[in-house]
Amino acid sequence: MGLIVQKFGGTSVADAARLRHVAEIITDTYKAGNQVVAVLSAQGDTTDELIEKANEINPLASNREMDMLLSTGEQMSVALCAMAVEALGYPVISLTGWQAGMVTNTVARNARIKKVDTERIETELNQKKIVIVTGFQGINRYEDITTLGRGGSDTSAVALAASLRADLCQIYTDVDGVYTADPRIVKDARKLDEVTYNEMLELATLGAQVLHNRSVEMAKKYNVKLEVLSSFTGHPGTKVKEVAKRMEKSYISSVAKNVNIARIALIGVPNEIGTSFKVFSLLAQNHINVDIILQGIGHEEGKDICFTVAQSDLEAASVLLKEHQESIGFGRLETNSHIAKVSVVGAGMINHPGVAATLFEALYDANININMISTSEIKISVLVDEKDAEKAVQVIHDKFFSMG
Amino acid sequence: MGLIVQKFGGTSVADAARLRHVAEIITDTYKAGNQVVAVLSAQGDTTDELIEKANEINPLASNREMDMLLSTGEQMSVALCAMAVEALGYPVISLTGWQAGMVTNTVARNARIKKVDTERIETELNQKKIVIVTGFQGINRYEDITTLGRGGSDTSAVALAASLRADLCQIYTDVDGVYTADPRIVKDARKLDEVTYNEMLELATLGAQVLHNRSVEMAKKYNVKLEVLSSFTGHPGTKVKEVAKRMEKSYISSVAKNVNIARIALIGVPNEIGTSFKVFSLLAQNHINVDIILQGIGHEEGKDICFTVAQSDLEAASVLLKEHQESIGFGRLETNSHIAKVSVVGAGMINHPGVAATLFEALYDANININMISTSEIKISVLVDEKDAEKAVQVIHDKFFSMG
Repeated sequence: MGLIVQKFGGTSVADAARLRHVAEIITDTYKAGNQVVAVLSAQGDTTDELIEKANEINPLASNREMDMLLSTGEQMSVALCAMAVEALGYPVISLTGWQAGMVTNTVARNARIKKVDTERIETELNQKKIVIVTGFQGINRYEDITTLGRGGSDTSAVALAASLRADLCQIYTDVDGVYTADPRIVKDARKLDEVTYNEMLELATLGAQVLHNRSVEMAKKYNVKLEVLSSFTGHPGTKVKEVAKRMEKSYISSVAKNVNIARIALIGVPNEIGTSFKVFSLLAQNHINVDIILQGIGHEEGKDICFTVAQSDLEAASVLLKEHQESIGFGRLETNSHIAKVSVVGAGMINHPGVAATLFEALYDANININMISTSEIKISVLVDEKDAEKAVQVIHDKFFSMG
Repeated sequence: MGLIVQKFGGTSVADAARLRHVAEIITDTYKAGNQVVAVLSAQGDTTDELIEKANEINPLASNREMDMLLSTGEQMSVALCAMAVEALGYPVISLTGWQAGMVTNTVARNARIKKVDTERIETELNQKKIVIVTGFQGINRYEDITTLGRGGSDTSAVALAASLRADLCQIYTDVDGVYTADPRIVKDARKLDEVTYNEMLELATLGAQVLHNRSVEMAKKYNVKLEVLSSFTGHPGTKVKEVAKRMEKSYISSVAKNVNIARIALIGVPNEIGTSFKVFSLLAQNHINVDIILQGIGHEEGKDICFTVAQSDLEAASVLLKEHQESIGFGRLETNSHIAKVSVVGAGMINHPGVAATLFEALYDANININMISTSEIKISVLVDEKDAEKAVQVIHDKFFSMG
């Protein structure tokens, strides 16, 4: 008994049958005595189809008009979902972002939620209605419609849960929770009942497509209890909270790999103050994110700077750096896209310094060479050859999670 | 030089090519030094497709949620049209019904405009922007989205023109104006440069699919100068105003026919006070509109009541009347759907009583039998056999418009 926010992504509402199923999940929650606010994405490929329509007319359309167009996608899905709930005989109302009081800043196509005026939603809840709200969108101070960019619907759900002081925010998706490793790679991977916000943040960054970082950050900030679960299976999912219960032995929660990265090495950089700054500010100005950085101590002839970028940024980064070869002063540039990042994440490792050693031992036993290493308080990442990545995940998982 | 409201219907904005063409019409008007507010319908079959989607999920969906769904259609077309105007390099902004201040009553799916808060539109116009507004929709006092029902986009355009005190309201459609008769039937039919509001009202009622009555009534009430023209041909259209210039001889402006009607005859109704009331109040309560009514003087054995209804209402009306045969007390019911209504409309006929005689002469000469007759101040309608309808239109047109 409480107030539950339930978010359903595009695949969960893709067609009439799926929408009817979502309506059942929502009304089952309502029947159990809860107040329910559902947050929906646009159906299936709607957003892509709208973008295609826009491109046909004007590939350089303004973001303001794109938001006007794209926001229709969620409006359609909430109206249709409300109709599905009506068909089941429950009181319901759908609300757009502006009707639901989702106030954002003015950055079209990538807006940030500034506040949620919950008055309308609360009025509807007090009238015993199920409330279905468009994800991904809001209204700015000029009364223009805005959209929130990637991960927007998750963020809408968490913002609503925070503002309404919801007891739980359930994120329904096409996976049924967070696993100790990708079940497609590691056969004995187990679903985790609970992970911490920080672990979830690291996992999202590592490419686990479960929750977008923006939403997890907001959940952590406002202490919103999250649950990730599948709208397809009906199984209990993974709860995301401040402190996660876990078996004593499991210092780490999950092993993950990301193969969509590439390494750039600048060889023979002058051993002067400021060269690293030059390189990384140049990349930042051009919106290229750098992940792991390794910089040798250097000697008289110069030093080497290695770092990783997303594979999709490799070409742009290489061209950019070569254009500035003279001013940066490096000797030559080498790239390698056949690498992978394998990471272990776990809030427990803060108090257990042996994790790194265990990780290295697992890789050493499997004869896997480590390229670069990067650590945070609750994460250790290593770069390995792409061909070794799956094996690395498996042996690390065995080492940390085997019951032996 | 002035403020011009331009309305474009569904076929005018059906695809990317048509939208680009509409953008050219709009920007040509703007380039000529005018302020432009464009009002758009949903693209082509969008509304029907949305209704189909809703029916798949819940054929009994509430009107409130249907409005939420249907209003996305116009929102898409205004955003896409704004992008097309952007592509031509002009400043532009699209607005939804609620952004444009279209305040309606609370009757979902058939709302009436109560007022237009023009502040936002005026701000945008003052910033030299072309403003593109969704037709067919508004917002009620609970901040719910409403749609205006049939003819809604024309009404939106006229309401905006009235509120903004526009110099002209152009209704772009797929015909290029009002003709003296349907050009597909009458070869020498001519386009009228001007018609009066009252003539236009009669013509709309007669089934000329040019303008919806609601919009003409509003234009008349607020003295909004209308022009009906084609977005396809670029020719000048027909102006609709309080007083229309016309050649002295032309007492009538147009000849029209409507074959989608049917006649019901109640034979042997008791010759008592109140039976007509019983019949027509019963039909009205069931939302069946009655057009021409003919009631014999009656004699001792009873009287006959004949009237016409839309062909689509014939079945329902017959069933309904038979259910109440006993209480109304008629002997038997006869129906005929092979009839047509042929009408002449003209503001001039008020001062020229010979029009009816000329009309009857034309039909007599052509050996066409007249079934029933109905007249208003500026209209004469006759019922004829359906097979005679086109010939009737031709001979009447010849009689009134031949140059001989």
